[in-house]
Amino acid sequence: MDTRQSSLKFASENKDYFLNGLDELIRIPSISTNPENAVDVKKAAQFLADKLKSLGVEHVKVHSTKLHPIITGEYLHAGSNQPTILIYGHYDVQPVDPIELWDRSPFQPATVGEYHFARGASDMKGQLWSTISAVESIIKTGEFPVNIKFVFEGEEEIGSLHFLNFVEENKELLRSTVCLNPDAGMVNANTPTIVYGLRGLAYFELKVFGPAHDLHSGSFGGVIHNPAQVMAEFIAGLHDDQNRITLPDFYKSVRPLSTEERSELARLNLGDEVYLQQTSVPALWGEKGYTSLERTGARPTLEINGLLSGFTGEGSKTIIPAWAMAKISTRLVPDQDPEEVHQQFIAYLEKHMPKTVKYELKMLSGGKPSISDTKSAESLAFAKALQSVWGTAPIYKREGGSISVVADLQESLGIDSILSGFGLPDDNIHAPNERLHLPTWYKGIDSLIHFFFNVKK
Amino acid sequence: MDTRQSSLKFASENKDYFLNGLDELIRIPSISTNPENAVDVKKAAQFLADKLKSLGVEHVKVHSTKLHPIITGEYLHAGSNQPTILIYGHYDVQPVDPIELWDRSPFQPATVGEYHFARGASDMKGQLWSTISAVESIIKTGEFPVNIKFVFEGEEEIGSLHFLNFVEENKELLRSTVCLNPDAGMVNANTPTIVYGLRGLAYFELKVFGPAHDLHSGSFGGVIHNPAQVMAEFIAGLHDDQNRITLPDFYKSVRPLSTEERSELARLNLGDEVYLQQTSVPALWGEKGYTSLERTGARPTLEINGLLSGFTGEGSKTIIPAWAMAKISTRLVPDQDPEEVHQQFIAYLEKHMPKTVKYELKMLSGGKPSISDTKSAESLAFAKALQSVWGTAPIYKREGGSISVVADLQESLGIDSILSGFGLPDDNIHAPNERLHLPTWYKGIDSLIHFFFNVKK
Repeated sequence: MDTRQSSLKFASENKDYFLNGLDELIRIPSISTNPENAVDVKKAAQFLADKLKSLGVEHVKVHSTKLHPIITGEYLHAGSNQPTILIYGHYDVQPVDPIELWDRSPFQPATVGEYHFARGASDMKGQLWSTISAVESIIKTGEFPVNIKFVFEGEEEIGSLHFLNFVEENKELLRSTVCLNPDAGMVNANTPTIVYGLRGLAYFELKVFGPAHDLHSGSFGGVIHNPAQVMAEFIAGLHDDQNRITLPDFYKSVRPLSTEERSELARLNLGDEVYLQQTSVPALWGEKGYTSLERTGARPTLEINGLLSGFTGEGSKTIIPAWAMAKISTRLVPDQDPEEVHQQFIAYLEKHMPKTVKYELKMLSGGKPSISDTKSAESLAFAKALQSVWGTAPIYKREGGSISVVADLQESLGIDSILSGFGLPDDNIHAPNERLHLPTWYKGIDSLIHFFFNVKK
Repeated sequence: MDTRQSSLKFASENKDYFLNGLDELIRIPSISTNPENAVDVKKAAQFLADKLKSLGVEHVKVHSTKLHPIITGEYLHAGSNQPTILIYGHYDVQPVDPIELWDRSPFQPATVGEYHFARGASDMKGQLWSTISAVESIIKTGEFPVNIKFVFEGEEEIGSLHFLNFVEENKELLRSTVCLNPDAGMVNANTPTIVYGLRGLAYFELKVFGPAHDLHSGSFGGVIHNPAQVMAEFIAGLHDDQNRITLPDFYKSVRPLSTEERSELARLNLGDEVYLQQTSVPALWGEKGYTSLERTGARPTLEINGLLSGFTGEGSKTIIPAWAMAKISTRLVPDQDPEEVHQQFIAYLEKHMPKTVKYELKMLSGGKPSISDTKSAESLAFAKALQSVWGTAPIYKREGGSISVVADLQESLGIDSILSGFGLPDDNIHAPNERLHLPTWYKGIDSLIHFFFNVKK
C-alpha cells in the first residue's frame, strides 16, 4: 500500500474518532462577538494548539492580539523544493440568538440521520477539523508529501479585526506557496466547488436620535419627526426602483461581469427555484438585469441586519421613541473598497438625513473583495483531488460571503487562496439549527488527503 | 365657617396625609400591559376599594372583568334634585422601560424640590388621588353637596379594553348627570385647562415574514427582499410629501377645524419654541398647513411606537432577518372611527405590501375621539372652581392624547365628561422620571372641592 492509500485507510477507519474530536471543539462556545465568551474563545485556541502539538506540529504558538488569539505552527519535512501550504482556519463562531428557534442546545452536538447539529458544525469548526483530520491521517501513516504551516484565527465572524496586522508583522513566519482555506462550501452534495471570487464587507451601525427621551405619542404626535419613521424613510431610500443601491458612486469601482464569466455562472444551473426552496420566501428579489447567482456572487448588495426602536414588548405602549438603531451592511465585489463605501455612506447621510434628528454612524467591520487564479498548479491539484473523490470535475463559482483574510493574504504575502470546503447551502450557517452533512464531511477529509499528495512536485 | 371653608381648611391641613396616601397607591406597580404585574393591578384595585369604604362610600364593589377589575361605589345623600357626578379614574400605569433612564426606582416615590417622582405620580394615580382627597375633605367636615358615584378601571393604559362592555352592562349602576374625569392636564402651571376634545386611538402590531429563518447575508444577499427593508419601505410610504397619512380615505371623516376654533387655539400661544424646549429635538415636523397645536390636538397622526428585526446586540452579525415587527398607532379626531382605520390599514397592506413577503396585522387597541359641551351647568361650575383657585379663567383646548372612556360614556350613558386635571406637559408621563408638580396638585384638590360646592343646584 502506498502512503496515499494508507492515509485514506486511516481516515476511513477513524470516522468516529474525527467526529469526537470535532465535538470537543464544538462544545467550547467560542462566540467572538460576545465579550462574555472571550474566555471560551481563548479556550478553543488553546485546545487547537494542544491538538497540533499532539500531532507533532512544531513551533506551535498562541499569539495574543488586542482581542482573540491567533495560532501558528509548522511541519516542514518535505524539503525546500516542495511547496508550502498555509492552512487557514477560524475557530470562532456566530452568536446563537434567536436561541428559542434552536431544536436543541447549540453547543451540545447531536447527530440526526446524516446531519450533525451544532453552532460551528459547518462554519467552520467542521471544515477546520476536516483539515486537521486529513493532516493527522497522513502524519500517522507516513511522510508528509509537502510542507505545511497553520494559521488559525478567532475573529473571522467579526471581520478578522487583527488578522491583516498579524500577517503584516509575521510575513516570514507565514511565507508559503498558497493558502488552503476550506471556509467556503459546495453548491450541493454532489458538486464539489472551488470559489475563485469573494465579496467584501462593510458593516455599519446607524443611530438616529430624536427627542431627549421617549414622548407620549398623544401629546407630541404631530410635531416630532419620529426617529423610527426617519430610520424607515432613510432605509427605504437606500435602494432605487431598479433595486440598485443609491449610495453615491457605489457602482463606480464594480468590475463588470464578462460574457465568459456570465456563461460559466449560468452553467451552474442554480436557478431561482433552488433559492426559493432554500429560503421558503414567497418570491425572490434583487437588482434588475442580473440572475440570482450573479446577484449573490458578482454584484454588491446592501442588507439591513437589525432594527431596534421604542417599545418592542408584548402589548401596546403609546410612545414616540427617543431613538432608532439599524445595523446595515454592504457586500462588495472587486474592485470596491470598504473604506470608500464608508465615505459614500457618510456623504449620503449628510445629504439625505433630515434636520429634524441627529445621527451617528459607526463602521463596525470591513473586508475587501477578492478574485483568485484558478489555473495555478496548486489550484489544479485541488481540483483533481475533488474529482478523485466525487467522480466529477469541480465547478468554479463566485461566493456571496466575505472572507477578508483571502484579500489580506493576497495583499500582504502575495499568495492566492484555494477556497473550497464541504459545507452545504442548507447548513443553516449563522442561523438556528446549524448542521453539517456528515457523508460530505468524510468525503472532504479524503479529498484533502488527495490534495496534499497531488500538490507534491 | 361654612362647609366649603371647613373642607378647604381640612385640605390645607392634610397635605402630607394626602401625599402619603398617594404614595401607598404608587408603590403598587400596577402596570396593566405586563402579565406578570396582574397581581399588582388587582392589589391596587383592592387598595382603592378599601379606601373608599373607609370614607363611608357605599356599595363599594370590585368587579372582575376578563382582565383587570373595575371598582364602583356611591355616596348619594344630597337628594334626588341634586346632580350626580360620576368620578372616573384609572389606577393602572404605563410600563417603566427603558428602566436604565430612570434616576431612581419608579415605584419608590421621592420628592425633589416641588416635584414628586414616580411612575403614575401624574398619570393618573396623582389625579385620581386628588379627587379622593377632595371628597375626603368634604365628607370629613360636613354634608356632601351633591350625589357622587365612582368608577375606577385598571386598563386605561392598554385601551380600556373592558370598560365599554362594563358600562353597557351596568347602565343603571353608573347613571349620572356628568362624568368628572381628571385624566387630562394643564397647558402650564399658571393656566387651568379644560379639555373639550380628545383624540382617539387605533394601535396595531404589524409583522413582516421573509425567509423561514435568519439567512447568511453573504450567501443570500441579493435574492431576498429583506423583511427589515420591506418594513422600512412600507413605513416610509405611510406619509406623503405633505407629511399626510396615506391610508385610503383616512381624512374622509376628519371634522375640519372651524375658523373660530383655530383662533381660540391660536390664543393659547403655545408656539413651536415650547415644543422644541419640551422635547429637545433639533426641529419640529408635521402635517403641512397646520400649527403645532392644531397638529397635536385637532389633526390625526400616525406614529411608529416600536421597531424590531434581526440582530440588535453589540457588534455585528451578518444576517438577513427572518422577520420584522413594528408597533404602529394612529391618533384620531372626530369623526374618525378606529375600526374604520383598521379596515383602511388592511386595504392599504393588501395594495402596498410586496409579494416577496408575508405579513400579519393585529389591532391591539382602539378608542374613539370625542368632543364635549363646554356650556353645560356642570362644565361652567368646574370652570368657576378653577378660576377661584388660580385667579384666571380656564382655557379650553383639544388634547392630543386618547381617553376612550369619554367616548364610551357619551355613547353608552349619553353623558359628557368634564375633562381636566392637574398634570403638566413636562411631567414625563409614559416616559422615564415621571413626576408630579406638588403645588399644582394641592391647588387641584382645592379646585375639586370648589367644584362639588359649585355644581350644587
